[in-house]
Formats: sequence, C-alpha cells, structure tokens
Amino acid sequence: MVKRLVEKVLSSRRVYDGHVINLRVDTVLLPDSKQTTREIVEHPGAVAIVPKLGDEDIVLVRQFRKAVGKYLLEVPAGTVEENETPRACAHRELLEETGYRAKKLTRLASFYLAPGYSTELLHVYLASSLIHVTRKPEADEFIETVIVPFDKALHWIQTGEICDAKSISALLLTSRRKK
Amino acid sequence: MVKRLVEKVLSSRRVYDGHVINLRVDTVLLPDSKQTTREIVEHPGAVAIVPKLGDEDIVLVRQFRKAVGKYLLEVPAGTVEENETPRACAHRELLEETGYRAKKLTRLASFYLAPGYSTELLHVYLASSLIHVTRKPEADEFIETVIVPFDKALHWIQTGEICDAKSISALLLTSRRKK
Repeated sequence: MVKRLVEKVLSSRRVYDGHVINLRVDTVLLPDSKQTTREIVEHPGAVAIVPKLGDEDIVLVRQFRKAVGKYLLEVPAGTVEENETPRACAHRELLEETGYRAKKLTRLASFYLAPGYSTELLHVYLASSLIHVTRKPEADEFIETVIVPFDKALHWIQTGEICDAKSISALLLTSRRKK
Repeated sequence: MVKRLVEKVLSSRRVYDGHVINLRVDTVLLPDSKQTTREIVEHPGAVAIVPKLGDEDIVLVRQFRKAVGKYLLEVPAGTVEENETPRACAHRELLEETGYRAKKLTRLASFYLAPGYSTELLHVYLASSLIHVTRKPEADEFIETVIVPFDKALHWIQTGEICDAKSISALLLTSRRKK
C-alpha cells in the first residue's frame, strides 16, 4: 500500500481569475521528496438535472459548446453561484434552461468531473412532478429543449449522440435507480 | 429550434501554456450579436480503461488528486501524449498504472469531460485477457492498485466511494454491455 501522504504545497502561483474558472499552479512535494507542479482549474461547483416529464419522457437541452466547437445534447446543468446551495441552483438552472419548475428534487450522486486538474464537484438531481412555467435563459445562453423518451436517451448514449460525462453518468445512474 | 449559429471568435487571448493544460480566453459573437467571453482549458485528450481480470474482477487505482485534495479510487486513466493514438495511450497507461498488459482492447465510448470550459475528449476502453508484467509508474505518480469484483465497484458508485465522472461512466457503460 502506498504511504498515504498528501502532497504538501511549497508554493502557489495564481495565473488567472476569471468569470467561471480560475487557474493556479501549485508546486508540491511528492512522497519521494521530489517536487512537481500541479495545474489546477478552480471551479465553484455545478449541478446536473434529470427532469422526468410524466412516466416516460425526459427533458434534454441542446446548445453550442465553444470549448469543443459543437452543439451538444446534454441534461440541463449549470454552475453554482455564490451563496447558492446546489439544490437551489438545480431549481434555478432547470427553470432557466427548460422552463420547468420541479415539485420534487432528489439528489442522486455527487462526483468530480476531471479530478486530475479541476476542482469541479457536480451534484446530480432527479427532478419530477414538473410544471411548465416559462423559460428564462441567461444572457449568453442559447438553448433548445428536446423532450424524448428516457429509453431513447439511453440509446443516444450508445450511438454517441449524447457524449458528455455528466449526462452519461446522470442518465445511467437514473436508469439503475429505476430497476 | 435555435438558429444553428456557431459562436464566431472575435479575439483570442492566450493566458497560460502549461505541462498538461493550456488556458485561453476567447471573445465571441453570440447569435443576438452581443459579445461574451469563453474561458477555455485546452487539454490533449485522455483515455480511461476498465481492466477485466478473469470473469469477475477489475483493476482499479487509488491516488492522491491534488485538485480535489483527496485520495480517489478510479479506473486507470491518463493523458494522451504527442503523436500517440488513444489506443496506444490506453496500453501504456494500463501498464504504467497497474502492471498489466491487455491482449484485447475494445473501445466502448468517447465523451467530453467538461464541455462548458474544457476541450478534453476521453476515450474509454475495455481491456481483457490481461497478463501481469510489472508496474512502471511515471515519475510524479504514486498509485496503488485495487482488485475488486466488478459488482463491488458498481456498489461503490452507489456509496460514493467511486466519485469521478469518467469512472462512473466507464463502469456503468461496461455494466450495460454485459447484459
């Protein structure tokens, strides 16, 4: 068993403080007393929601993702704001991105997106008993909602039409719960 | 349906060129002619491997993840090197992190980790017919291997012991394949 030594930070350099993310580079001491650097993206955390519409359907969203240069089909999701709980964030993002309010919100899991370099922790919620209100997208979001049977969404994971880690994890965790 | 306009890049600022990741900030034109900035982490891509040992077990790895300040239990994984194919990377990372060579490597899926701000595309492979050789960890990696029944790993997703998106996605995709 590897000695359970955490990596001691010798110095930390702030590279960038941004709108959604920050970047810092830590110089750390390894268990063998050598040094290395760790590039760390600081992220405030996020939520993803699996919105169940009736017995069979779910609500997905399609939007352009500049980082990957493509329109992606995903579960609704968003970044936790300052002084906001993940649960409140899930309610807000669901409404902003799909126009639905959820009477019931159940946390399914919490996991890290890219622990090799990002602090981002994402909380997944199952939303049900939805009521359609109206969509209030944020200023820089252009989002299309897509309502599909849950089984179709699972099929789209197999075909690669759904191809982001949080959506795949959230939908497959929901699928296992249904059994 | 939202007009399928990509976001036109008006200017791009390179913030950081690093060891594993780079950071740039793009100013883009939105579909409504307004401008916004997109913070983009450039990542060379990665692989994750589900190594099947015999009929029941899989090989997991535990390592300290500085970005999240914890030891995490994950499927073996790593970053694609320059001029390396994802498949060659999967063979190399499996050997480095676990000491096993795979006679058979099957691609299960490819997906984005955090498409809101990272370019990272991850390829998941199922590795089987493993032969134990020897472990060759990289200089700054301190990794412990953990051999467990596949069903135990699925249970650890439920309990939160396995809590990163690529491991959850890779294991649940493997689980669905087995049916």
